[in-house]
Amino acid sequence: MTAPSAAILLTGNELLRGVISDRNASFLAADLELRGVRVRRTLVVGDDVEDIAGGLRELAASADLVVTSGGLGPTHDDRTVEAVARVAGVGLVLDQEVLDTVTRWTDEISTRQGLDPAMFEPGNRKQAHIPEGASVLGIAGTAPGLVAEAAGASVVVLPGVPSELRRLWLDAPAHPRLTDLFARAVPRERLLLRTYGISESRVADIFAESGGDPEGVETSICARNYEIEIDVRTDPADRPRAEELWRRMHSALGEHVFATDERPLPEIVLTLARERGLTLATAESCTGGLVAGELTSIAGSSDVVVGGAVTYSNQLKERVLGVPADLLERHGAVSAEVAEAMAAGARERLGANVAVSVTGVAGPGGGTPEKPVGLVFLHVAGPGGGSAHRMQWPGDRGVVRRRATVAALHQLRDHLLTLS
Amino acid sequence: MTAPSAAILLTGNELLRGVISDRNASFLAADLELRGVRVRRTLVVGDDVEDIAGGLRELAASADLVVTSGGLGPTHDDRTVEAVARVAGVGLVLDQEVLDTVTRWTDEISTRQGLDPAMFEPGNRKQAHIPEGASVLGIAGTAPGLVAEAAGASVVVLPGVPSELRRLWLDAPAHPRLTDLFARAVPRERLLLRTYGISESRVADIFAESGGDPEGVETSICARNYEIEIDVRTDPADRPRAEELWRRMHSALGEHVFATDERPLPEIVLTLARERGLTLATAESCTGGLVAGELTSIAGSSDVVVGGAVTYSNQLKERVLGVPADLLERHGAVSAEVAEAMAAGARERLGANVAVSVTGVAGPGGGTPEKPVGLVFLHVAGPGGGSAHRMQWPGDRGVVRRRATVAALHQLRDHLLTLS
Repeated sequence: MTAPSAAILLTGNELLRGVISDRNASFLAADLELRGVRVRRTLVVGDDVEDIAGGLRELAASADLVVTSGGLGPTHDDRTVEAVARVAGVGLVLDQEVLDTVTRWTDEISTRQGLDPAMFEPGNRKQAHIPEGASVLGIAGTAPGLVAEAAGASVVVLPGVPSELRRLWLDAPAHPRLTDLFARAVPRERLLLRTYGISESRVADIFAESGGDPEGVETSICARNYEIEIDVRTDPADRPRAEELWRRMHSALGEHVFATDERPLPEIVLTLARERGLTLATAESCTGGLVAGELTSIAGSSDVVVGGAVTYSNQLKERVLGVPADLLERHGAVSAEVAEAMAAGARERLGANVAVSVTGVAGPGGGTPEKPVGLVFLHVAGPGGGSAHRMQWPGDRGVVRRRATVAALHQLRDHLLTLS
Repeated sequence: MTAPSAAILLTGNELLRGVISDRNASFLAADLELRGVRVRRTLVVGDDVEDIAGGLRELAASADLVVTSGGLGPTHDDRTVEAVARVAGVGLVLDQEVLDTVTRWTDEISTRQGLDPAMFEPGNRKQAHIPEGASVLGIAGTAPGLVAEAAGASVVVLPGVPSELRRLWLDAPAHPRLTDLFARAVPRERLLLRTYGISESRVADIFAESGGDPEGVETSICARNYEIEIDVRTDPADRPRAEELWRRMHSALGEHVFATDERPLPEIVLTLARERGLTLATAESCTGGLVAGELTSIAGSSDVVVGGAVTYSNQLKERVLGVPADLLERHGAVSAEVAEAMAAGARERLGANVAVSVTGVAGPGGGTPEKPVGLVFLHVAGPGGGSAHRMQWPGDRGVVRRRATVAALHQLRDHLLTLS
């Protein structure tokens, strides 16, 4: 039995012309692959209805399923639904249920915002028109997601807004018109190793030394967010061989492995703190609030995170965190000594069990021969003492700040592991 | 004279299957468009040489130029060069100069890392083989970028690593084999309107009421980062008509227009504060540091931003910002009153001229009928008084936090505009 195949069609002039970057293709592709549907191609076209229709025809010719993203909005350049109807050779019909639902929603917004509800009417009517014979998958904002057939393939039509696309997509595999297709798919299984502090080429060597991919197993090694992620995919039948490879690599990578699941790093940190009954605080200079932002990105973080201080100026380092003025003068704001005093001050003054501090030169200005752009000092202060870290990496301002944020989270993790 | 057209071919199983996200297409597309080369399509295929060749053939049939990214590495699954040769109907030949350059480079690495230089030899020889008749554009790492012709189109072959792709691409338009093509291109001009606080469908109405696109002008309306961006593109000859459309829309959109250039929103806020000689501070609860993170993302922000407080717990709201305990008790942490006290406290205790505060229910837990998930109070305290804002939008935790962050920056902007 051949695995069912899919293709992804992204639409929109902004996407095609590089005004915005796509955030949907990798989500859809990864989910399809895990469900056992092989992704053949992803195609990006503009808003032109003939371009969309042409792309859809081509993709439908070599895939069982085409998933489209974008072009469902209320404006004149949202033409995906029309293109699907053209390829299917059907007309557009008004779906009264969609119109009613969407109108209730825009009426509610209008009331809340004090707007005239009538201004939404033309857009709502446009969005409630769907290809004859198509099914409504669900409504995101004011746009319906659709399931249809066109040019011999199943077509799932999704909005371009990533959060809306994700929500609607998760209902698609169970839709009656798609269950046969997904039933033919054998979901692939996935074994993960997420490492930090080791180079991609060293990981590649360890993969080779561990014997490489056995039959039926496919490993990818991928740097992202300053981690190296090793993704071992296997058909269920080949799982024992995949596990053997995974175990060998895990053992060779040792302490560089920080996770074997997909939990976000801040969630891993919060869980460790929660298990130990410890609260956390942050003291940030060059990262300007990003470490606190990451920690609080996780639902339920408020039982662990008490808060943080963004002390950009030296004055605030003194006033809010109690960093001694002479320490700042002697060593400078970017120093191991000040990092330590910031963490200690945050721990004490913000009333947390464990605090992490970051101070560095994010650039592009402010660097000196002794303290170049990219030099960052981190410190974790905990009940049993502290741990210091100095990092120096090249990169622009954004890269230095993100790298330092990830480093701070890893240092929190490492420190929490030493506490019982 | 028709504008020359281009297509982009991204290769790689990891990209196709969603293991990594592409970072090259939007860079290439935006650069091509501004140079006056119309991007027709972007296609993503896997590592299979027939898939790459097939994709290249299709793209070459409808574009003057195809730019490829990826598949130039030393391993067996890097097959782009082979695919280009197949489509061009030529063989691969060893380029001795490439081999010499690359070998010098790997010898240097070997010396530095204490490795056997011979282990690089097979990879180097593979990478030094180029399609007969192709030109070397430059070398990135151990891979040559190439310029070739295949199936009637010019083909620029680039590596997948974003920094290497960018460096080599910038030399491409001046390459002797491409100068004719780029000489035919008329760089497009772009007029922008960035709006906030108005719906996409209302913007679409205003676009229609303003007469829509005249000949030679192409407008796209795009929601991103909770703004609606109106992008009017025109050939230089049609600029007067584009300007007329832009002026009409600008006038109808009124105060919703907050920018006509591409500067990031935090930079706009910082510039307004700097022009007025005012310093800024933040007091954040549900956004957890993201507002401070945005403000400090801009180089040189330290002369305006003194810092901020992330007061997640009520205790820290009292301790760090001086919010009265009875205020918290009477109105709750998510209230207009507490938002006001947070902003006033940040202004005073952090020593800034203007402070912005955010407190809300980010969810998914913590909502009540009176204070549902998505309810956020913002306050700006300045030298001449304050301004309050209440927002309530549906969305998941990430959306609520990002929306509130953007709202805080806009409220800062609005408030700064009232100060002289």
